[in-house]
Formats: sequence, structure tokens, C-alpha cells
Amino acid sequence: MSPRARVGVVGVTGYAGFQLAKLLLRHPRIEKPTFFLRDGAAKFRCLTELFPELRGWGDAPCQPYSTQAVKESGAEFVFLSTPHEASLELAPELLGAGLRVVDLSGAFRFRDPDTFSSWYKLPAPPRPLLDGAVYGLPEMYAASLPGARLVANPGCYPTSVILGLRPLIEAGWIAKERGVVCDCKSGTTGAGKEPKCDTHFVEVNENFRAYGLFAHRHTPEVTEHLGLAHRDVIFSTHLLPVARGILSTISLWLAAPRSAEQIEALYRQFYFGRPLVRIWPAGKLPELQHVAHTNFCDIGFALDAPGERLIVVSCLDNLGKGAAGQAVQNLNGMLGAPEEAGLI
Amino acid sequence: MSPRARVGVVGVTGYAGFQLAKLLLRHPRIEKPTFFLRDGAAKFRCLTELFPELRGWGDAPCQPYSTQAVKESGAEFVFLSTPHEASLELAPELLGAGLRVVDLSGAFRFRDPDTFSSWYKLPAPPRPLLDGAVYGLPEMYAASLPGARLVANPGCYPTSVILGLRPLIEAGWIAKERGVVCDCKSGTTGAGKEPKCDTHFVEVNENFRAYGLFAHRHTPEVTEHLGLAHRDVIFSTHLLPVARGILSTISLWLAAPRSAEQIEALYRQFYFGRPLVRIWPAGKLPELQHVAHTNFCDIGFALDAPGERLIVVSCLDNLGKGAAGQAVQNLNGMLGAPEEAGLI
Amino acid sequence: MSPRARVGVVGVTGYAGFQLAKLLLRHPRIEKPTFFLRDGAAKFRCLTELFPELRGWGDAPCQPYSTQAVKESGAEFVFLSTPHEASLELAPELLGAGLRVVDLSGAFRFRDPDTFSSWYKLPAPPRPLLDGAVYGLPEMYAASLPGARLVANPGCYPTSVILGLRPLIEAGWIAKERGVVCDCKSGTTGAGKEPKCDTHFVEVNENFRAYGLFAHRHTPEVTEHLGLAHRDVIFSTHLLPVARGILSTISLWLAAPRSAEQIEALYRQFYFGRPLVRIWPAGKLPELQHVAHTNFCDIGFALDAPGERLIVVSCLDNLGKGAAGQAVQNLNGMLGAPEEAGLI
Amino acid sequence: MSPRARVGVVGVTGYAGFQLAKLLLRHPRIEKPTFFLRDGAAKFRCLTELFPELRGWGDAPCQPYSTQAVKESGAEFVFLSTPHEASLELAPELLGAGLRVVDLSGAFRFRDPDTFSSWYKLPAPPRPLLDGAVYGLPEMYAASLPGARLVANPGCYPTSVILGLRPLIEAGWIAKERGVVCDCKSGTTGAGKEPKCDTHFVEVNENFRAYGLFAHRHTPEVTEHLGLAHRDVIFSTHLLPVARGILSTISLWLAAPRSAEQIEALYRQFYFGRPLVRIWPAGKLPELQHVAHTNFCDIGFALDAPGERLIVVSCLDNLGKGAAGQAVQNLNGMLGAPEEAGLI
Repeated sequence: MSPRARVGVVGVTGYAGFQLAKLLLRHPRIEKPTFFLRDGAAKFRCLTELFPELRGWGDAPCQPYSTQAVKESGAEFVFLSTPHEASLELAPELLGAGLRVVDLSGAFRFRDPDTFSSWYKLPAPPRPLLDGAVYGLPEMYAASLPGARLVANPGCYPTSVILGLRPLIEAGWIAKERGVVCDCKSGTTGAGKEPKCDTHFVEVNENFRAYGLFAHRHTPEVTEHLGLAHRDVIFSTHLLPVARGILSTISLWLAAPRSAEQIEALYRQFYFGRPLVRIWPAGKLPELQHVAHTNFCDIGFALDAPGERLIVVSCLDNLGKGAAGQAVQNLNGMLGAPEEAGLI
Repeated sequence: MSPRARVGVVGVTGYAGFQLAKLLLRHPRIEKPTFFLRDGAAKFRCLTELFPELRGWGDAPCQPYSTQAVKESGAEFVFLSTPHEASLELAPELLGAGLRVVDLSGAFRFRDPDTFSSWYKLPAPPRPLLDGAVYGLPEMYAASLPGARLVANPGCYPTSVILGLRPLIEAGWIAKERGVVCDCKSGTTGAGKEPKCDTHFVEVNENFRAYGLFAHRHTPEVTEHLGLAHRDVIFSTHLLPVARGILSTISLWLAAPRSAEQIEALYRQFYFGRPLVRIWPAGKLPELQHVAHTNFCDIGFALDAPGERLIVVSCLDNLGKGAAGQAVQNLNGMLGAPEEAGLI
Repeated sequence: MSPRARVGVVGVTGYAGFQLAKLLLRHPRIEKPTFFLRDGAAKFRCLTELFPELRGWGDAPCQPYSTQAVKESGAEFVFLSTPHEASLELAPELLGAGLRVVDLSGAFRFRDPDTFSSWYKLPAPPRPLLDGAVYGLPEMYAASLPGARLVANPGCYPTSVILGLRPLIEAGWIAKERGVVCDCKSGTTGAGKEPKCDTHFVEVNENFRAYGLFAHRHTPEVTEHLGLAHRDVIFSTHLLPVARGILSTISLWLAAPRSAEQIEALYRQFYFGRPLVRIWPAGKLPELQHVAHTNFCDIGFALDAPGERLIVVSCLDNLGKGAAGQAVQNLNGMLGAPEEAGLI
Repeated sequence: MSPRARVGVVGVTGYAGFQLAKLLLRHPRIEKPTFFLRDGAAKFRCLTELFPELRGWGDAPCQPYSTQAVKESGAEFVFLSTPHEASLELAPELLGAGLRVVDLSGAFRFRDPDTFSSWYKLPAPPRPLLDGAVYGLPEMYAASLPGARLVANPGCYPTSVILGLRPLIEAGWIAKERGVVCDCKSGTTGAGKEPKCDTHFVEVNENFRAYGLFAHRHTPEVTEHLGLAHRDVIFSTHLLPVARGILSTISLWLAAPRSAEQIEALYRQFYFGRPLVRIWPAGKLPELQHVAHTNFCDIGFALDAPGERLIVVSCLDNLGKGAAGQAVQNLNGMLGAPEEAGLI
């Protein structure tokens, strides 16, 4: 077996960072990671001070972040589980120091710097960085991972929608002129750990609401990787009273009638050999609880009797395949390890 | 004040029946209702034996059901909160005995008897009954209520979808040829009180799933009252991990660009003077918790910047405006009482 | 019917205040209340700006708070739904202006000013005010309400525990030397509306935790009104992943063996004629959902076979009988109205 | 490394069986297990037919159960995740065939056969089997595991209560004459997978209730392993609106005053070297979400200022340390593997 990789993680104070820590502490192909904390969290010396439930999982030493400290830790790979603006600043430093970076923020997800700056209201990232960045959806772009220096880990909603639609798009089976409706629902870990009115228990429990309509920053990821015009996609997001998981219900009209067998075969062929995407047989639908606390994306569908209207249901754990799990899957690709290592 | 109406209720063992009992026990325009129970429940003599939490709400005497018993109770109006097949049998008997009936089942909701028999896999109701039946959505058909002998109380999903779309349909503002997507989510009281694998706490909690795709029996109500072809509507239903409420996210393309002000004005005008439909101002969206435990239907919307793509959010309590509340609203119409009597 | 009372409410921005507003807007014996807002909320002119779900409930005009404004509104009664320190300041002013006050805070609940100051870490209230204050648990102290000028509305936990234990205490049936264990569980509205880490949805959902052990400020209310020594009571509080409700499990040993019939009879006799306390028959236990969204306190019990060990289960809605409902019940007592007016 | 053990599992259709399957499919010290199904489930040929969410976890072949089939599978160890009555029948057969058995039912948990028969209303197990059975709480009885042929896996509630109290009991620090109150709360997976009225989502969600008071079958396990008289323990059980986890709040008076440091030291010493019990530092309390989806039991406590009254909080996942995780821990002990193998 090849030697274990040395890995650092910057920013593990949120839900995605915590999930990443749990995955990395158990990963068979890497050394115990070093955690680098910033700002108020920099005082912690061990991850169990921040997350007492990690006691018993083994040592998880923390250090205050500096590029120098990461370099000296011997890390070859660094995960950035940091806010967009922090990633914009830290990624160039770390790349400059010779490290390979998987960034979980939105900073480097778009080919065109203006897409980022207009949707995120932040400075544009340098175009050369974007030219070299890989959009880290391994089921589409795994071939680019072995040589990648900067991987932009996709958003949670786009992962579910792109994986759900890409086979149909590539096959040309969608009646694009009628438009595609992506009605997406997410658990509350997706809204971040910072306490806000909107995430107070009493405002989420026994509630359900749409939010961010026509304004969600994940919109341009969806259209860019599906090759659809903004005006032909309605992408809506909702908050579910659950902690974890995204379920996207994707409704569309087919360009020509198809049978359920054809649809299922298309998906099975597209995802053949990809262990983290599970295709459900025609007539069965995946549910949120099948993927919560996993790193899978499950896809199923329903077709009307004439074979004209299609509903695709794509679901995943927003902290798993939608964030930390996919980040580790990207690391696996960079390492040349099996893509599911440490993830099943 | 006019004398109080005398009312009977058949079948109060489910969630909608229980909600109906609570509304009627407090209604200012009716006498204390008499409850008629069938089958295994016919042994109960007081509603508090069935629902101990009703103690303290006043007497709620029960009797075994028979048409004769209802007649002798002096009731003029009868609510049927019974299964479809039971309503098919009981409604003609009760109408024949001179009573006026509000039926909460699906038995009499369609103009064409075949629509019912093909979607519900049950015998068709007699056509003359359907000819005289009123589809009990008072915001559309209140004018027919004063003289109605049989009111078919609408389904919970159709109530939310029809109220959400009808103003746009009547205005001709929708690009129908692109289709309309109604992505609907319901709380678990909508699945009935009978224990099933699918409604076990552990299978609903922290879960979310689509069900009944292209097969839900509420589909033909939606198309019939919107004048849309089946092939142009994608109507999907999902189970939320909450007890009460339906939220329908309705996505569509407009036939011509509109402003948010125009959309809001259209809805306000359409529902002017209808106290149980609340229109949210442009830029604000209703949430499930705003309508849970109420008899309102709340409607809001989001429009894209060019004014082309529209998302309408329509929500209600499936036991309130989606069932028992609407049944009482229909009674109010039959009585000539204000439509919100006993409902706010 | 006597003329309707004129009422003002100060502070309706929290969950208890909102519940109070809903009760008062529907109360048959009072005029539409006036709402007085303080601090940042003083800008609102109508309660629907703060709580959009109140639209359709009728006018609920708001004004910035001042003693003068309350006086000029014509109010005879004022509810203070304000923080402890604010009530400490406002109650004397309002009483001085001739108004009668129901205070929902902890400021005036104790006979001894030092009890308040040592448990709440705030200045002691003036002793003369405490001498005249009524502890607003109407099932015990209703006789004092007609003449009361200041009513201290009890805490939510103490209401459930005192109502559950007082019959046994007065009868002398408890083996006090063995101690009494009050294991109490509350929904999250009890923790207030301010967003905090502890009330983030993800930290409450699918979770359960004890908190405030041996330090909860409701402790001295319990011991004062039960006549028990602190050292003989273990009072613990837990946070439930529900919005509303308190269930207290009270475990104790009886001084001498009793039968279930005796226990039930004791409770029925004690609460005879008190419509808001419902005693469950021996062998049946109340549940949180029986009292959520009501103003009842439900009490049941289990006795071991030898009649020695007793578990009393007492539950209520922390916003109903545990706060706003009880405040209205106190108002009813001050008015000479039936204690359940507007509450069932 | 020693060769992998060969293991069979009988009955994986419930929640504990499913959890056991997940643990065994990933266990580093055993071969892929064989699953034996009974009754209606015997038709399944692969576990993914029963639990579609296991797809991607590797093969999990199933066979109809017979003692012969288990024997021929080459299994040395068998887990019985079967109803009490089935275990009573199957365990003797399997032991007779030379297999070593871990039984998750209550059938073999008591020294005295009458204890079982009187609490479970089932035939008494043969006394010789009980004489040789080990009560599988490894933190107390690990020394007996290497030679054990029959291990009775403890109940979920008793595991939490016994682990929480045993250090105090052995130290003689409890004022036993005052009694001990164990107020326990469990998630709904503990109520089994069979749909019942009591486990319908709508009857659990937003609800909380006590059940089984003075009648719960876990009671005699608690008293037997703590050496307490029934009359000195009040053991109550409640249903939480969560899927997983038990939190027991144990209230007692100390025989003599102690400091928090002494209490913490007692627990740390008692559980020194036991990786699956985590002691929380004085002043911090474990929560359900710290142990959900883990195999840990977490214990914390609060002491009053005089050092007289003590509240111990003990929590675990009822499917983890409370059932399947502990069963695997027992297997580890039988194998001579580290007790946490495959469990952290």
C-alpha cells in the first residue's frame, strides 16, 4: 500500500468542517490530519475542546492557522472549510507554498470571475487560478483530479441537480424549450451554524418554507454545468425541518417519448463504475433517510404513462456528498486512491 | 341573530373528523352537533372516550350511525367525514331523507362519474347526484352554496393549487404551452390515522420523500378546475416530517413579462373580500407555520428580474382550509352566514 | 353582560407575548387591546408588521410605550410581557398611575425580596410591592384576585409542579423525608425567541438535554409554594425537541400506602370546579400533545402495586397555562369573569 | 492479525438487526456475515431487498433460517436479533450445534428463570442455560466473555442506568434508604418497527409521554445488577420525538457529602481503560446528539452546592451501545479482540 498522505484542514468550526474532521480521522489512506483554526477558534489546542463528542475518536491536534504553520506541518494537501472571502485570500497563499488545495467555498467554482463576483458580491478571484481550478464533481471531472492543484468543491444543491440531470442533458432527451424546474429542499445544517432568527428551532420545526427564490448563489453552478440558459431553468430552494439532506425534485418534459427502461438504462450506463451514485430501479424512489449520514447521491425517477413527463428525484446528504464527503472523494482522486476510500 | 343550525357529523375517528369536531363545538352559529359513529367506533357514547383531550370542551354525545338516527336528531346539515366508499353509500340516503350534506371524501368532486371511478378504482357515483353537487371551494363557487344540497369538499392539495393558480389562469397570463409544475409538500396528518409502515415515526422523522408521482388521485381535481390538459401539468406530492400543513410551490413561465406589482394586484383583486385567503406582499413568502392550526390559505410569489418566470407559493393547513375548515366554510355558505364564522 | 374591560399589553415581541396577543384579540370580555412596544420594536404601528401571520385577525394597533401612553389609552389592566429588569422598573410606574398589572416576569413572584435578588442576580423589588402582590396560580389563590393590583404570573415549570403536588402536600400523604424528584421537560419556546447556539435548530432537533441543574431560577417558586425544604427536592429541567409544552414527571414515596382510587379522588376533590385542570383517570396518563395549544394543565398518575411509590405526570403548554393563558386566567379573576373565559 | 471470525445473524428485519448488519458489514475482524431470515422475510435473498439503502455496502446474502443452515454456513458465532419467544427456542438449538450465541432479546438476562417468566409472561428459560449465560455488559463482566457460549445482551434502558449508577453503588456512596429515581427517555426506534397507533408519526411528533410506569420489563435488570430493592427504585420510561437515543436522568441523595472532584474521580477510575464509556468533566453534561449514531455511553453529573443531592445523566444510542453496538462489543470480548473494534 502506498504511504499515507499528509493532510491539513483549515476551518473546522462549522458543520461541514466537523463532518470533514470525522471523515479524515477515519480515512485509511491518510495520516491523522492537522487542524488549523482561525480567529476566535485559534485558541483551541485539540478538536475535542470545540466538539466534545469527538472524545474517543483519537487525537485531533489544532494549531492557529498560518501558511507557514501549514507548510511546516508537512501537509501536502489542504482543505479549506472557510468562508468565501477567506478562501479567496488563503488559497493563493497555500498554492504559492506548493500545497494542493480542496476549497469547499464558492470562490473558485466558476470559469468566469464575474460570475462569482456578481452572485456573491465579493471581489473576483484571479482568472489564472480559475483557469487551473477543477470543478470537483468527480463523476464528471475525475480525469482532471490527479494533476489538479486547486479543486473547487461544488455546492450541495448543484451536486444533486447536476448529477440528476446530466445524463439526460448529454443524451439530448430534454425538451429544453419547455424549461426545467428544479424544486430543491434542504436540511438546516445547510444554513450554517451561526445562530440566526431563521434557524431558531421554533422557526424551523413544524415549518417549511421557500427562500432565496431567483437569487440563490448556487444557481449559476447549475446552469454552467448543464449548459442551460438561465431563463429556461426555475431553481427553487426550501428549508426542511430536518438536520441533514437535500432532495431535489426535477420536473421536465422529454423531447420524445421514452420508456422507463430506457431512462433507467441511460442512468445506469452514465454512472457505471461510480460507487457513490446509486441509481434506483424504475418504480422506486430514494428518500432523504437513505442518504443521510452517507456519502452517496441516490437518483430515482417517475415517468408518466405516455413517456412524456419525467420527474427525477436526486438526493444526498448536504454534509456528505454535498460537502465534506465530496471533498474527500476529490482528495481520493488527487491521490489516485479509489474514489470511495473512507466514504462507504 | 338567526337561530342556530342543527348539525350532525358522521365519522369523526380520523384527523379531519377530529378537527371538524373541534371547530363545530365552538361555532357560534350552530347548536352543539351530534356525532354519529360507524363500525368499531359505534360503541362510544361520548367523543371524549375517543379523544380524551376533548375533555373540558363541553358535551359531545355520540350515537351509532343510521339514517334514521340522523333524521331523528333534528339535524338539517350532515358532514360526512367518511371513506370514499362509505360516502358513496351514505350521501344518497341522507339526501333522500331531506338532509343537506357536506362530504369530505372524493366521491362527488368530479363532473364526470368516470373520472372518479378511474382514479379511485371504485364504482362511479350516480350522474344526477354529480349534476347537483357543488365543488366546495367557496372563493370560486360561493354563489352556489345557499341552494346546495350536496357539497363536495375539495381535496387538500387541490385547494392549495387551485387557489394559487386560478387568478393567473383566468387572466390568461400563463404560457400554458410550456406547462406548469406544481411541487406540493404535505404534513403527515394528510396520510391518515391508520398506522402504516410509511407513517411510522421513524420512517417520517428526519426524512422527506416524494410519493404517488403521476398517480395521485388529487390530480384530476387540479386539472378540472384550472382548465389545463393533463399533459401540461406536472403535479408532484411529497411527505414532510411535520404533522400539519401543505405548501405548494408552483413554477411557471408567463405568456408576457409582468411586474411584481401587477402580479400582486391581480391576486388582491381576485381575492378581494375573501377573508380566508391572505395575499402576501411582493417580496415576502408565506411559510407553513403561518397557516398551521388555522383556516387560512396564504399565497405569495417570487418573480424573476425580467418578469418572465414566476414561482407561486400557496400554503394552508391540510386539516383546516384543506379539509375541516373548508367544510365549515361551506356550511357557512349554505347557512348564509359570513364565510369566516367560527373559523378565525 | 358587563361592559368589556380595557386592556394594554407591554412587550409582545417574544413567544409568550405573541400568544397573549392571540388570546386577547379573541377574548369575549375585553375590548380590543392596545399594544405598547419598547426599544427597537417601538417603530411598529401594527402587530401584523411584527407577526405577519396575525393578518386577518383584526386590527392590533401598536404604540411606543410610556406610562402616560398606557394611561391615555384608557386601559385599566396592563400585562407586562417584559424581561425581569424591565418589569421591576415598569410595574411600580403603572401601579402608581392607578393601573392593575399582571406581570409575566419573575420580578414579583417571591415573598422575600432576597429570594429574587439572589436567584436572578438583579436588584431586589421593593418589599411593599411584594406584600401586595398575588402569586397568580388561580387554582390556589383565586380568592385574592378580585382585589389584586399586582399579580405575579407564575413560571411555567412551577405551575406544572405545584399543581401536580399541592393536593398531596396539603393532604400530608408524601414521605417528605425521602425527598421528591421533579424531572421536568420543556419545549423550546420556553427558551425564548432570541437566537442562541443552544436554540439553533440543529442543536435541538433529534437531541435532548438536561440544563440548569441545581441552578434553575424556577426552583424557589416550587419550594415556596409546596412548603418543602430545598434539600428535599431535586428539580431538574430538560429541553425537548418540540416547540411547546412542559411535562413534569414527579416521583415520590407515600407516607402510608394508598390505593389508586384514593389518589384519584384526592385530586378530583382538590380541583373540583376548576375547569382548566383536568384530572386523568387512574391508569391513563396525559401526554404533551393533549395540552399543546391549550390552556389546560392535565394531571395523571401511576401507583405501584403496594401503593407506596407514586409517579405524578403533570403537563401543560408553557405558553398557555404556563404563561399567557394563565395571565388571562388571572385577568378573568380580577374582572370577576369565569376563570376559563376566552381560554377553552 | 488473527483470521477473521465467521458470523451469522438471525433476524435482521427490525431496527436493531439493521444496525447490527451495518456494524458487521464493516467490522475489521470478521468475515462478511451471513444473514438468516425467518417467517415472511425468509423469501429475501439479499439484505438490499429488505433495506435498499444498503446498496453499495457490499454483498449481504440472506438465507432462510434453520439450525442446519447456520451450521453449514461455517459460522462460529450467531447473533439472535429475534423476539423473546423465538430466542427461547433458537438459542438452545444453536448452542446444541456447538455455536456461540449473542442474544439481543430478554430471554436469558436473568439469573432466576421466574424473573423472566413473571415480567415477560412467557415460559421460563431452562435454568442450566441461565447458569452459563453471561450478562453482556462488558464494562462489568468482560472477564467472562472469552469463555462464554451464551451472552445475553442487556436492555437499552438498563445499560444506561447500570453504567450510570454502578460506580456509586460499588463505592457505597448512595443514601439507599431515600431511594433512587431513574427518569429515562428513549427515542422511537426503541419501540420497534411494527406500525402501531403509538408510533404513528403524528402521535410521537411534537409529543412526549411517559409509558409503562411500574411495569416496564427492563425494571428487574436494573435492580438485579445494582443490588437495589424494587421498593427503593422508581424507574420511569418516556417516549421522545426523536429516532435514536436514550437519556437517563438519575436523581439521588448521597450518604455523605462529596465534592464534584470526588465524583468525577470515582467515575474516571471505574471506567479507566473502557473506551466506550466517556466520562464528562464536572460541570458539563452529555446530550443525546453526542451519542446518536455512536456506540458510546456518555456519563456526566451535577452536584448541589452542599454536595448532598446528585443528578447523574447517562446517555447512549439505544441501537448502538444499547443494542447492536453492545452485541458487537460482546463479540469482540468473545474473540479476544479490543472491545472497541469496529465500533468507533
